[in-house]
Amino acid sequence: MIFVTRKAHFNAAHRLHNPGKSDEWNEETFGKCNNPNWHGHNYVIEVTVAGEPNPETGYVIDLGRLKSIINDRILEPCDHKNLNLEVGFLEGVIPTSENLVKAFFEELEEDVNEATQGNSTLYSVKLYETERNIAEYCPNRAL
Amino acid sequence: MIFVTRKAHFNAAHRLHNPGKSDEWNEETFGKCNNPNWHGHNYVIEVTVAGEPNPETGYVIDLGRLKSIINDRILEPCDHKNLNLEVGFLEGVIPTSENLVKAFFEELEEDVNEATQGNSTLYSVKLYETERNIAEYCPNRAL
Amino acid sequence: MIFVTRKAHFNAAHRLHNPGKSDEWNEETFGKCNNPNWHGHNYVIEVTVAGEPNPETGYVIDLGRLKSIINDRILEPCDHKNLNLEVGFLEGVIPTSENLVKAFFEELEEDVNEATQGNSTLYSVKLYETERNIAEYCPNRAL
Amino acid sequence: MIFVTRKAHFNAAHRLHNPGKSDEWNEETFGKCNNPNWHGHNYVIEVTVAGEPNPETGYVIDLGRLKSIINDRILEPCDHKNLNLEVGFLEGVIPTSENLVKAFFEELEEDVNEATQGNSTLYSVKLYETERNIAEYCPNRAL
Amino acid sequence: MIFVTRKAHFNAAHRLHNPGKSDEWNEETFGKCNNPNWHGHNYVIEVTVAGEPNPETGYVIDLGRLKSIINDRILEPCDHKNLNLEVGFLEGVIPTSENLVKAFFEELEEDVNEATQGNSTLYSVKLYETERNIAEYCPNRAL
Amino acid sequence: MIFVTRKAHFNAAHRLHNPGKSDEWNEETFGKCNNPNWHGHNYVIEVTVAGEPNPETGYVIDLGRLKSIINDRILEPCDHKNLNLEVGFLEGVIPTSENLVKAFFEELEEDVNEATQGNSTLYSVKLYETERNIAEYCPNRAL
Repeated sequence: MIFVTRKAHFNAAHRLHNPGKSDEWNEETFGKCNNPNWHGHNYVIEVTVAGEPNPETGYVIDLGRLKSIINDRILEPCDHKNLNLEVGFLEGVIPTSENLVKAFFEELEEDVNEATQGNSTLYSVKLYETERNIAEYCPNRAL
Repeated sequence: MIFVTRKAHFNAAHRLHNPGKSDEWNEETFGKCNNPNWHGHNYVIEVTVAGEPNPETGYVIDLGRLKSIINDRILEPCDHKNLNLEVGFLEGVIPTSENLVKAFFEELEEDVNEATQGNSTLYSVKLYETERNIAEYCPNRAL
Repeated sequence: MIFVTRKAHFNAAHRLHNPGKSDEWNEETFGKCNNPNWHGHNYVIEVTVAGEPNPETGYVIDLGRLKSIINDRILEPCDHKNLNLEVGFLEGVIPTSENLVKAFFEELEEDVNEATQGNSTLYSVKLYETERNIAEYCPNRAL
Repeated sequence: MIFVTRKAHFNAAHRLHNPGKSDEWNEETFGKCNNPNWHGHNYVIEVTVAGEPNPETGYVIDLGRLKSIINDRILEPCDHKNLNLEVGFLEGVIPTSENLVKAFFEELEEDVNEATQGNSTLYSVKLYETERNIAEYCPNRAL
Repeated sequence: MIFVTRKAHFNAAHRLHNPGKSDEWNEETFGKCNNPNWHGHNYVIEVTVAGEPNPETGYVIDLGRLKSIINDRILEPCDHKNLNLEVGFLEGVIPTSENLVKAFFEELEEDVNEATQGNSTLYSVKLYETERNIAEYCPNRAL
Repeated sequence: MIFVTRKAHFNAAHRLHNPGKSDEWNEETFGKCNNPNWHGHNYVIEVTVAGEPNPETGYVIDLGRLKSIINDRILEPCDHKNLNLEVGFLEGVIPTSENLVKAFFEELEEDVNEATQGNSTLYSVKLYETERNIAEYCPNRAL
């Protein structure tokens, strides 16, 4: 089993806020991340595909294709945007890193699986909100 | 001459916008950085003090003191905030990296110069808006 | 399954030495890491929690809580300390990275598992002794 | 289960080219990576060994031994070399990152498994072709 | 004085070789960097412009413009290329980092100076051949 | 003027302590850095040489020579050592980063200046005690 990873970057504004809850609950739960005037991050995303390389190309997936899928599906809608207000596939999602990696995985899955050159599939999406706060979604990994 | 640097981090939202100009001018000038719904960054700030070490302590400045000044003067007002709306000393400033480093330098100068232990002064403020976009203000440096 | 990671730093002195063995054995086994006058490291620790996000918060665990547990349980006892002489939960432990990650995991486990917001548990502790030497303890992971 | 990782660096030239295919196929498949005049990378390799620490040493493997095996088996033959022309164990291999991690794993396996001090084996080889393009071979890991 | 820096990356093959000297001299002088089969690097380039920000934009230079100049002048001719054989402005240049930074500076100077928005000029070009080997050309800096 | 930099690493133990002062003064001045049981760091050192490249080699200095001088003069005496007790040229020096960069510069100066291939000299020594605490000695630089 070979794992191939492509890393990309985008910048965005967000706030952590559950609109189904009171302002007090939100402030108590999310603290300064709940600031109604927003804050933001330089997000780093790592997308990993797992599989066997195609013997003719030596590729699990063409990383140029993967770069372009990440660009179309994630960077185009999210870069320099407000994740709470402007991204279609994030409607109704509280933009914690945990929720973002799951939403990004689902957004990428179909295109990535079509682009693989070997016997391979999308394996995980990892997101660095900051250098110190990281989330990863890896639905098919045994604990 | 010895240069001592302390690095710190904060996250914030901003947009590039000159309120004295039309929306068209702003969009043409600042592109996606002008997004009215904001975007944001993990800013990295490096503050450098230049001077001679105090012979009793070996310090140009106590970096614990410098850390605490950066915290009070920059991180406390800017972290998880909106740089266009919520920071007193940035009122009327278009928050480009160039303008931020100058404003941060001026905000830090008095406290840092009081805290030096040697014959030394605040030398420069450097800001990484992203890993690839960097500005530095260094008013006393010969070209 | 979502994995959430928090990174932290501390500095410490240590030496590799098995007190049940002769000085010759120790010097031959551990080389310069056995120096009786100590050496030290800027350790980087990454603590990962695995689980499902709480639907109300979008959190597997509140990273502010996790930061504070790492601070109380690891940084407070270890930072700027001698790992062979001054850390209660490391008594009798040869402070190799392998032994440290296991000891840190056990030290963190109870508090982390109490703090999770979803259906989740402490998953791994990773330690960078240097940029080039890394250990990870991951007791529940299938090979 | 404890995982111990050693990181190393080497620089090399390569091109992606399948000699069993036409020039057109190669250029269409590999694009600028097919340049007949070569290009090159600062490769970063991470070698991970998994196992239980030896109770006398606290080591899964002596990282000094692992460093020296990586040096003899990978850096000596590959550093400042042309991966298509000059490396014996890469003959007939299209030097994509996917193929390199598999070849490096097989080249390291015997020596690493002899050098372990606990009940442990070579677990994975990870290669950073650039900061953004990464491959990992991990043959015994459950998906 | 404000310094604005834009960072970029490219991969290339090269060898250190003075064609006016004997093979023996070259091998003795440049060692493994003289390998006739080439080696290569992931180069990181940092381009710095110094000046005063334009009061209307807050920019010393539009970093989007600077990115595009670096792309046209440096990345387009050098990325995935052989620096000894394929780059017009490097003809006759031994591609040491020292010579590259000077050549890159001269290649960038006219376009950058036309693009500045303040009272500013190209200040320096810095090149990381590896993380450990770095050169910078800074013709107008006082020692 | 071209600046060439070589980066290296070493690990060491130290404490900040002025033996000419009382224990109270030391503890008040240096806090946890005064711990009598030591602490330690992964130091990163950057040595910069400034000058004009030799036209035959394209080198300001052969970085292989510079690496070997840093190894002999700094890494050999300091790596895995106690900076307060075991390094001849640091006797009587309080090992703050400020004092270390000055001592390292003086220790390197003669050998580096002999090894230059152009019209060049040792320009600066920079030391990262941690990623966040940095000192640089640059005796000939205009403010």
